Amino acid sequence: MSKKWVYLFREGNAGMRDLLGGKGAGVAEMTRSGVPVPPGLTITTEACNAYYDNDKQFPEGMWEQVLEGLKDIENQTGRKFGDPTNPLLVSVRSGAKFSMPGMMDTVLNLGLNEQTLEGLAKLTNNPRFAQDAYRRFIQLFGKIVLGVDGDKFEHVMDKAKGVHTENERQDTDLTADELAKIAAEFKKIIKKEVKADFPEDPYEQLRMAIGAVFGSWNGRRAIDYRRLNKIPDNLGTAVNVQAMVFGNMGNDSATGVAFTRNPSTGDHNFFGEYLINAQGEDVVAGIRTPQPISKLSEEMPEIYKQFVDIAKKLESHYKDVQDVEFTIEQGKLWMLQTRSGKRTGAAAVKIAVEMANEGIIDKATAVQRVEPAQLDQLLHPMLSPEVRKNNKPLTTGLPASPGAASGIVSFDPDEAEKLAGEGQKIILVRVETTPEDLHGMAVAKGLLTARGGMTSHAAVVARGMGKPCVAGAGALQIDYAAEVARVGSVTFKKGDWLTIDGGSGEVYLGNQPTVDPEMSGDFATLMSWVDEFRTMGVRANADIPRYAKVARGFGAEGIGLCRTEHMFFEGERIWAMREMIIADTEEGRRAALAKIEPYQQSDFEGLFREMDGFPVIIRTLDPPLHEFLPHDNEGMKELAQKAGVSLRKVKTRVEMLHEANPMLGFRGCRLGNIYPEITEMQARAIFKAAAKVKQEGVTVIPEVMIPLVGGISELKPQSDLVHKVAKEVMEETGVKFEYQVGTMIELPRAALMADQIAEVAEFFSFGTNDLTQTTMGLSRDDAGRFLPLYVERKIMPDDPFQTIDQEGVGQLVEMGTARGRKTRPDLEVGVCGEHGGDPASIHFFFKAGLDYVSCSPYRVPIAKLAAAHAALAAKSGEIRKDK
Amino acid sequence: MSKKWVYLFREGNAGMRDLLGGKGAGVAEMTRSGVPVPPGLTITTEACNAYYDNDKQFPEGMWEQVLEGLKDIENQTGRKFGDPTNPLLVSVRSGAKFSMPGMMDTVLNLGLNEQTLEGLAKLTNNPRFAQDAYRRFIQLFGKIVLGVDGDKFEHVMDKAKGVHTENERQDTDLTADELAKIAAEFKKIIKKEVKADFPEDPYEQLRMAIGAVFGSWNGRRAIDYRRLNKIPDNLGTAVNVQAMVFGNMGNDSATGVAFTRNPSTGDHNFFGEYLINAQGEDVVAGIRTPQPISKLSEEMPEIYKQFVDIAKKLESHYKDVQDVEFTIEQGKLWMLQTRSGKRTGAAAVKIAVEMANEGIIDKATAVQRVEPAQLDQLLHPMLSPEVRKNNKPLTTGLPASPGAASGIVSFDPDEAEKLAGEGQKIILVRVETTPEDLHGMAVAKGLLTARGGMTSHAAVVARGMGKPCVAGAGALQIDYAAEVARVGSVTFKKGDWLTIDGGSGEVYLGNQPTVDPEMSGDFATLMSWVDEFRTMGVRANADIPRYAKVARGFGAEGIGLCRTEHMFFEGERIWAMREMIIADTEEGRRAALAKIEPYQQSDFEGLFREMDGFPVIIRTLDPPLHEFLPHDNEGMKELAQKAGVSLRKVKTRVEMLHEANPMLGFRGCRLGNIYPEITEMQARAIFKAAAKVKQEGVTVIPEVMIPLVGGISELKPQSDLVHKVAKEVMEETGVKFEYQVGTMIELPRAALMADQIAEVAEFFSFGTNDLTQTTMGLSRDDAGRFLPLYVERKIMPDDPFQTIDQEGVGQLVEMGTARGRKTRPDLEVGVCGEHGGDPASIHFFFKAGLDYVSCSPYRVPIAKLAAAHAALAAKSGEIRKDK
Repeated sequence: MSKKWVYLFREGNAGMRDLLGGKGAGVAEMTRSGVPVPPGLTITTEACNAYYDNDKQFPEGMWEQVLEGLKDIENQTGRKFGDPTNPLLVSVRSGAKFSMPGMMDTVLNLGLNEQTLEGLAKLTNNPRFAQDAYRRFIQLFGKIVLGVDGDKFEHVMDKAKGVHTENERQDTDLTADELAKIAAEFKKIIKKEVKADFPEDPYEQLRMAIGAVFGSWNGRRAIDYRRLNKIPDNLGTAVNVQAMVFGNMGNDSATGVAFTRNPSTGDHNFFGEYLINAQGEDVVAGIRTPQPISKLSEEMPEIYKQFVDIAKKLESHYKDVQDVEFTIEQGKLWMLQTRSGKRTGAAAVKIAVEMANEGIIDKATAVQRVEPAQLDQLLHPMLSPEVRKNNKPLTTGLPASPGAASGIVSFDPDEAEKLAGEGQKIILVRVETTPEDLHGMAVAKGLLTARGGMTSHAAVVARGMGKPCVAGAGALQIDYAAEVARVGSVTFKKGDWLTIDGGSGEVYLGNQPTVDPEMSGDFATLMSWVDEFRTMGVRANADIPRYAKVARGFGAEGIGLCRTEHMFFEGERIWAMREMIIADTEEGRRAALAKIEPYQQSDFEGLFREMDGFPVIIRTLDPPLHEFLPHDNEGMKELAQKAGVSLRKVKTRVEMLHEANPMLGFRGCRLGNIYPEITEMQARAIFKAAAKVKQEGVTVIPEVMIPLVGGISELKPQSDLVHKVAKEVMEETGVKFEYQVGTMIELPRAALMADQIAEVAEFFSFGTNDLTQTTMGLSRDDAGRFLPLYVERKIMPDDPFQTIDQEGVGQLVEMGTARGRKTRPDLEVGVCGEHGGDPASIHFFFKAGLDYVSCSPYRVPIAKLAAAHAALAAKSGEIRKDK
Repeated sequence: MSKKWVYLFREGNAGMRDLLGGKGAGVAEMTRSGVPVPPGLTITTEACNAYYDNDKQFPEGMWEQVLEGLKDIENQTGRKFGDPTNPLLVSVRSGAKFSMPGMMDTVLNLGLNEQTLEGLAKLTNNPRFAQDAYRRFIQLFGKIVLGVDGDKFEHVMDKAKGVHTENERQDTDLTADELAKIAAEFKKIIKKEVKADFPEDPYEQLRMAIGAVFGSWNGRRAIDYRRLNKIPDNLGTAVNVQAMVFGNMGNDSATGVAFTRNPSTGDHNFFGEYLINAQGEDVVAGIRTPQPISKLSEEMPEIYKQFVDIAKKLESHYKDVQDVEFTIEQGKLWMLQTRSGKRTGAAAVKIAVEMANEGIIDKATAVQRVEPAQLDQLLHPMLSPEVRKNNKPLTTGLPASPGAASGIVSFDPDEAEKLAGEGQKIILVRVETTPEDLHGMAVAKGLLTARGGMTSHAAVVARGMGKPCVAGAGALQIDYAAEVARVGSVTFKKGDWLTIDGGSGEVYLGNQPTVDPEMSGDFATLMSWVDEFRTMGVRANADIPRYAKVARGFGAEGIGLCRTEHMFFEGERIWAMREMIIADTEEGRRAALAKIEPYQQSDFEGLFREMDGFPVIIRTLDPPLHEFLPHDNEGMKELAQKAGVSLRKVKTRVEMLHEANPMLGFRGCRLGNIYPEITEMQARAIFKAAAKVKQEGVTVIPEVMIPLVGGISELKPQSDLVHKVAKEVMEETGVKFEYQVGTMIELPRAALMADQIAEVAEFFSFGTNDLTQTTMGLSRDDAGRFLPLYVERKIMPDDPFQTIDQEGVGQLVEMGTARGRKTRPDLEVGVCGEHGGDPASIHFFFKAGLDYVSCSPYRVPIAKLAAAHAALAAKSGEIRKDK
């Protein structure tokens, strides 16, 4: 006896996905549950693999089992495959374990030929329907099974409908005779293209269609998809053969789709639409306007009731919102498919919380039902839906920071600051941004740049500020001098209204309406459940008290990264900073630093107050000094004047500080090691602030972080200095406070030497941006020239600046953590790179045993949800946490 | 009974360095061998450690043992310590296990006071000698033991001698009375400075001197020296107390130093000098001109014969050239010290080979006797010795590439090329160099730059070309426009003669004489012995046939790195390259590449012919494309004209290719992955050249190396392409040839992913320059601003671009090698970074199990010697090789 290659729908169940594929298991489960499903059979994935092992021949006994199954279908439907008087027609669908976009499309109406066509016409008393079904079948079969270019068929259709003529008609206007002529023409095309007649034998049709499904498993698109999604090549696909039912057999027939709850809002109402006397594809094709599903209760009250019962049963069976397809054939309801319904972020939250409250699912499942990325939509203003209906975007860039914003265009940060001061809403438009533009960025409603990637300066700063940003809109040409920008032939100028959607990357001309998100009670409920399951901490990257407040509002448990350099750019401070840089002597530098210290102290006080009770990690000065200097003649003149030195001296200094590769240059702890007075001033400001707020009753936990350390010998002098200052400040103020000194791990060498570094460092924070840059030898500012092509050609699976490179960079994260904890078992280890807000990366950090992630304030809820998902996956054994 | 803290000289031997220190063990060994050594005792290193453990008190019993030993010395000399009539005087010297420059200087004549002074005068019948000895003793004791500023004593001496007056006299002109007055003044100074009388009691003097030696073990200079040289802090120092003998007791007394062979030439003759009636320091101080040692055979033939016998005995005892100090006291010869003599590279080679031929040492020892770095002197022209006698250098930069050269100054590579064509010798003087200057560098006799470090472009290229280079001469200010350079107030201009010494970094005005090195037969003999012991291969980095020939001449066993990009700069090729870069389409690029292909093929043919029988590794295009483009307006105009495009287009392209961090940018295999046609052209040129020379009878072994790979997915497409082209060329030409495709490991990620990469790569070559840059986050072009300070402050032990960072970067070398060989056990692994020519790094590469190192042609003998040293050290168990 040969192996069992074929299962009838009633023989399978939901647990047999491996063997029957997702679709096969789904219809089997529906059939088992008593839902009316047109009968059918599933050829197993094993048959597919055997087919490949067997030199692309069906394995022994398979075809015989298919014929046997077909008999069963004939018995159930009372029709006969290939019978000219009462023909059974079937659909043939692929169905792998995982839904795979690259796989074969469905072939409908298989079994039709010149004879059965007549029988169908008589049986249904509807020759036009029969001819239409025939025409569709030949077209689909020709295109999908025989591989004929689909345009050739469309061309014939267009001609028949008179497309582009005055007398253009719809598909539905074509008569039976016209359709018959079209079918004949289709057959001619096929004969010409494949040098063979269209197969008239229904069994031959079926055999070919099954072979085509098997073949599509190794089609180029399917292989690429599997590689990209890491799906093994040896799973194979199942084939589903199912009796056709017809929604286009008259006004007692219909077809439709529906969700058991509203996928847009999450409201607990049926949501969907249907068409009387139509086949499935007509609903989607928009030939006639479908009716809302509620209308069915008026038109077919009995059927509607049955449908609602079934749909509710399916929802409670699968314990999730169902997206169902149904067909009514001459007054009988058939369910064709049911699957979990895709939904918006808002709907996902509402549905998850309500289902948990209804007792359908537990809290853990509710938390798992919401994808972290979906929350992003809830945290920012959105473009009003009608905008997309009525407008085409001017251009599209990278969706660098979510949210929609409208404002008048400014190309100049100074002007933007001035206009914003006058109450104007500004969209700042720049080729790219630098830290010098920060004051303009801070006041703008949104940012648009022509250059730069998802981790460009504009993108990173915008996300930190929770401000919409479209970055790297390559088609945008900006002429600063003329204060005009151009996209193709369209121009806009300073003062024109512009709207950007940082969630989609779209840019629109004009002041387009936006809608504010509502932080509904469901959101708060969900986040409270998230916190029940989450084990990894979530902090925020925030540089000034304003953002710390936002972060705390979003539930941040401290600050994981305060970049002090951002403080140096505001207002008058930049001049003191510049004086410090051009000073020749330690005394000169100390004098300039003394001017900055009070500003820093006051900023730190603000941060500590906002983060009362939570740790605040403050990084000492990190960027290359030239970033603080003006590079244009005017700016240099101004600096010379203010600092009372010659222009020549300023120019020399700017030139001297120029670097071939600033990323690998004089920055990070190297600054503090060469100019210890900078670190000393910063430590003093931090600890004086700590002492002051502690006296106010604030619980303050400062953690001083030394950047770009490559080994213990680079960290030790800085750490010693910070400890010395702490002692001094405690003695001066008489206030004792807890504090820590730690380091960033952002160079490969630091990860390799982590055991030694941990002798001095009291905590680690992985700077995964720089660690990615150095480990991969990849500048995030420059990678734009090849990285998109690398991702497109699958040389890299993702942009490694968005999702951490687990294989490579990840090894260093694991190594650094393990080695650090070997020296200091209670070492606190976190991450403060951009990856701290990326769900896939957060899963990895959880596995690597990190204590917390830190991300921009607006991503805190997303990170928390991702952390809860990771914890739940670990609980269920789905992922394993490193020890 | 207390521990033995004190050994008489006759109780010790050469094997007791740990306990008696190097000096103590040395005099003990001499004493044991019957050499006349003034008697003495050694206080052990253990006593020093006990002193520190004992709160800086002498350990129990030590002082008593010193007194006992002193008795023995008194018995042997027949004098008595502190006896006014027949006083014993002693010297007190420090002496740790390893010679340590930071330790205490010697105190001579200890035991003198107002009473013994009189005794000494009577005993020697030489009051002036006695007064002079007393004066010296107070001065040294005051400075060294009591810590009084030495200038204060010198000031008194200067005044007495009338320095800077018309009547200025020599030390020797001072009378006994004058010296007595000086001694009295010295005592006054001491009283004022240390608030105590000068100690009159000889025992008190001895006690204090011993304490001072112990104290100097933990002086700042000693601690720094130990840290730098990785000498443990717990070794302690010994103290040697030895009876004084006097070379200044009349014309039957003398003092001198001598080498058993000539330390400058290696000639087998005594070499040294002496002074009649003088003390040791007088020989060095240059107060009187010493006599050559041969003169002693005339002046004191008996003594000379005795001295020669002893010196020869010492040489054969220690089996090495000895540097001895002796004193003749009233006709009796005393040996004071013997140690291995320092020698020049030339002498080292000659002495090692001759001693082996004489049967004194074996070949392995001969090989170990020459330091690899010493060979460098032998491979380049040197500055004639009188230059330094007669001139002060104009300025000093970094000794970037050894050898001396003179020529006329040119500031412009084009002009340099023109003048060199006319037969002029050129010194090319630039602020810094870029690949665009290459044609000028290639024709210059030497290079001088104002900026850049030991691994700057100028330095690396110069070493590759074996050309003298002084880099980063910071005091040099160059005005290109005026064609003038300035060092302080001195200027030189275009056309002036200049001489540079790349071995010392010195720059001299004028055409200074240089001497060519002789590759003596001894050198060849030594290198043949080196090859007997060496196990690791040595290849050369060479880009063109000319350098390949040089490399082969120096014994290179193949080419480890041919940088094809250097080929793109010569002559007309650069224009084709530039056309390729500004082309918009693949067709345009292919057309330009077709122009380059014949040049490349012909270069490769030349390389293969020179390296007949040896492998040649050719790296595909590596540097960022903008390095090939002109950056000045004129150059861009010329390109626009030649390529037939608009200037605007050229400018746009140049701007587009600008990168913030080119080191981490669009370069390496990224170029070949985005523009496969470049790699294809290069592979075709390589294989067509291979096929051609093979037909000529050359044994050709091409290895194609893909640069800057981060993982298998970056390597695979390039490797596949090269294999495809190889197959095509074999089919086209009908010639079969062996070849390999491998990769550079120069990114941390590549080392981490080496197991996967080795699935495709057939060989690895570590690019340790880039690996150091990325692992440490350190740009070698920019590190000059802090790296020297880092090294000075011991934050880094060495410049990691000169000697590999074993702790950090070294981990990745070991990891990459181990992981690669796990996948492919016979994987050939080498290194082609600058470290391949650095002896310390070569030791590390040997330990890491690498198959070969590759370095610039002129360093091949150095690398070979270092490799032999490593192999011999492994044989003796001194270092362990990784498996």
